[in-house]
Amino acid sequence: MRNSTRSKVDPFIVMDVMEAARRAEEGGRRIIHMEVGQPGTGAPKGAVDALTRSLQQDSLGYTVALGLPELRQRIARLYGEWYNVDLSPDRVVVTPGSSGGFLLAFTSLFDTGDRVGIGAPGYPSYRQILSALDLVPVDIQTAPENRLQPVPADFANLDLAGLMVASPANPTGTMLDHKAMGALIDATQAQNAAFISDEIYHGIEYEAKAVTALELTDECYVINSFSKYFSMTGWRVGWMVVPEDHVRVIERIAQNMFICAPHASQVAALAAMECEEELQGNLDVYKANRALMLEGLPKAGFAKIAPPDGAFYIYADVTDLTNDSRAFAAEILEKAGVAVTPGLDFDAVRGAGTLRFSYARATEDIEEGLVRLAAFMAARD
Amino acid sequence: MRNSTRSKVDPFIVMDVMEAARRAEEGGRRIIHMEVGQPGTGAPKGAVDALTRSLQQDSLGYTVALGLPELRQRIARLYGEWYNVDLSPDRVVVTPGSSGGFLLAFTSLFDTGDRVGIGAPGYPSYRQILSALDLVPVDIQTAPENRLQPVPADFANLDLAGLMVASPANPTGTMLDHKAMGALIDATQAQNAAFISDEIYHGIEYEAKAVTALELTDECYVINSFSKYFSMTGWRVGWMVVPEDHVRVIERIAQNMFICAPHASQVAALAAMECEEELQGNLDVYKANRALMLEGLPKAGFAKIAPPDGAFYIYADVTDLTNDSRAFAAEILEKAGVAVTPGLDFDAVRGAGTLRFSYARATEDIEEGLVRLAAFMAARD
Repeated sequence: MRNSTRSKVDPFIVMDVMEAARRAEEGGRRIIHMEVGQPGTGAPKGAVDALTRSLQQDSLGYTVALGLPELRQRIARLYGEWYNVDLSPDRVVVTPGSSGGFLLAFTSLFDTGDRVGIGAPGYPSYRQILSALDLVPVDIQTAPENRLQPVPADFANLDLAGLMVASPANPTGTMLDHKAMGALIDATQAQNAAFISDEIYHGIEYEAKAVTALELTDECYVINSFSKYFSMTGWRVGWMVVPEDHVRVIERIAQNMFICAPHASQVAALAAMECEEELQGNLDVYKANRALMLEGLPKAGFAKIAPPDGAFYIYADVTDLTNDSRAFAAEILEKAGVAVTPGLDFDAVRGAGTLRFSYARATEDIEEGLVRLAAFMAARD
Repeated sequence: MRNSTRSKVDPFIVMDVMEAARRAEEGGRRIIHMEVGQPGTGAPKGAVDALTRSLQQDSLGYTVALGLPELRQRIARLYGEWYNVDLSPDRVVVTPGSSGGFLLAFTSLFDTGDRVGIGAPGYPSYRQILSALDLVPVDIQTAPENRLQPVPADFANLDLAGLMVASPANPTGTMLDHKAMGALIDATQAQNAAFISDEIYHGIEYEAKAVTALELTDECYVINSFSKYFSMTGWRVGWMVVPEDHVRVIERIAQNMFICAPHASQVAALAAMECEEELQGNLDVYKANRALMLEGLPKAGFAKIAPPDGAFYIYADVTDLTNDSRAFAAEILEKAGVAVTPGLDFDAVRGAGTLRFSYARATEDIEEGLVRLAAFMAARD
């Protein structure tokens, strides 16, 4: 049997790093994981307890496609608490992770051949999901002076049907403030392009609160997830907010593509939203880790970094150290026992000169990782 | 913002029935649910217990995209137990429900504009997912003398890139035996078309064991789920078996589209596979319900039915009673308080003259439903 053309998806280069790390661990070596994009913590205790109770009482069959009504209501309320935005629960769609949100959004908005702008560097799956749907991902080469976020001039002549932004962004951790976000929204609306805001790292921010696109417009898609701030990666539950007149369309696609998000995960997610104290504790760990990284990485010799506004990544320019981030990451793993992500996964053009360091894990791992990186770089001189 | 053309998905007509049923129940009326496609039972106790333990011990982060290795191994072993087929775990892919399997299979196999044959009547989401991916669903009008399953002559000149079959089928419950399945496989291979076998109702069969396509060929996609026999609908976990040389392609699509199937659901599914006794108990209920339906429906006046080989549906020809199954289902709901599915969801051409009765729920509901249907039909004469 033949495979389709649309199925020719690029491999994640970091998978080779992870496989090499796994082999090293099998061989008895301790590896520090600065490549992973997920918290080391599990779901909050309140979420685990709520599901444990529910498992005894409920049969957890299909939910309606848009999600448990009480979860949609609670998510709507979050927009009041976090942003002072008054949001109707009717516009909230519970999804199987943000991944499910991307599939729904792209299907709802774009037809075959439509061009969708995505920032480079950016989350690799945007591009791959767009391609798998026979849409055309258009890389926007963002500028360092814009902190690697797109600005209107970057896509003025790209003939886009849509623009996808992320704030805080992966891999850079940089955010769009009101003004920058507003400029992007205005520019896309002027071009009759759809605006999609990936807000999966909201809640994990260090200086200022992240801005949701919903503070500025109702004419947008917002995609979020319980994976990061709520620390529930493996549960595959997230949400979207869409314009009122798109809800029915999304509902029908979701009924057919997914039936519903996992019921047990929806129960756990609802309870996770009341676990503020534990989640703030996780955030304190990221804060401590971030401070260690911002001090330790330059000391070790990774000097070209910018303080991230949010998320748990630092994106380093290593052009003065290598022109092959893939080989460099392999060397760091082999010699230092630290797994990091080569920038090529995020930016096919410039990623050969960048690395992403994640600080989502335990602080003691970050400390150990920084010691190893410093020793590795010292030996390299 | 504009919606895409590909997002123009047909509504499920049964949703109107379900909404009317919900309103009636809100008004205090007791409705018998013969419209739902899911077991009334929850996950087996062993699955619930295993997950309850795991919740205390594991953080349940992302799994690898192909699924927990021990679950893939256990699924492979099922093929030995059920069909005496020796299957490598490497070919098993854990998916977010069979829905996720459809998305992966169609993406892996077909390009924009490719024509994919599906039997009519058939599961409505095949058509809708294909359309959402800008593929072309091609209805194969199956013949009553073939028990509403496709035969090679039905699609000899349809220029198909693929054929999707289901055995036991929804809505008919009819199965393909070795000979019928083999003929379809030979015909598709001769046309260089991909063969996809939806085996979601396997395990729920009454006279003979259902045949898996893997007994006949390795060059096919098999899609299955924990939703029906294993009684885990809301958990969104299923699996596929694909040719060895398609595993890498599927893995990459799955990494990007889903990251992984829900971890908690995978843990529960693995344990569910050791709950044979409880699951056979569920099956005994379906058996009793089926016998009641096969006796009670003709007595009530729904005479044109065929005994289903598997699943938990009876598809009735009601052309002598109505030419508008939608209005007829609404009338049955209003007057008898029994919710049934109009055939139009399964067959846009002939479904105006058919109804689907589900007998997945408790036996006392089936008994009560049959009494009501008989009274309704008697009053109608």
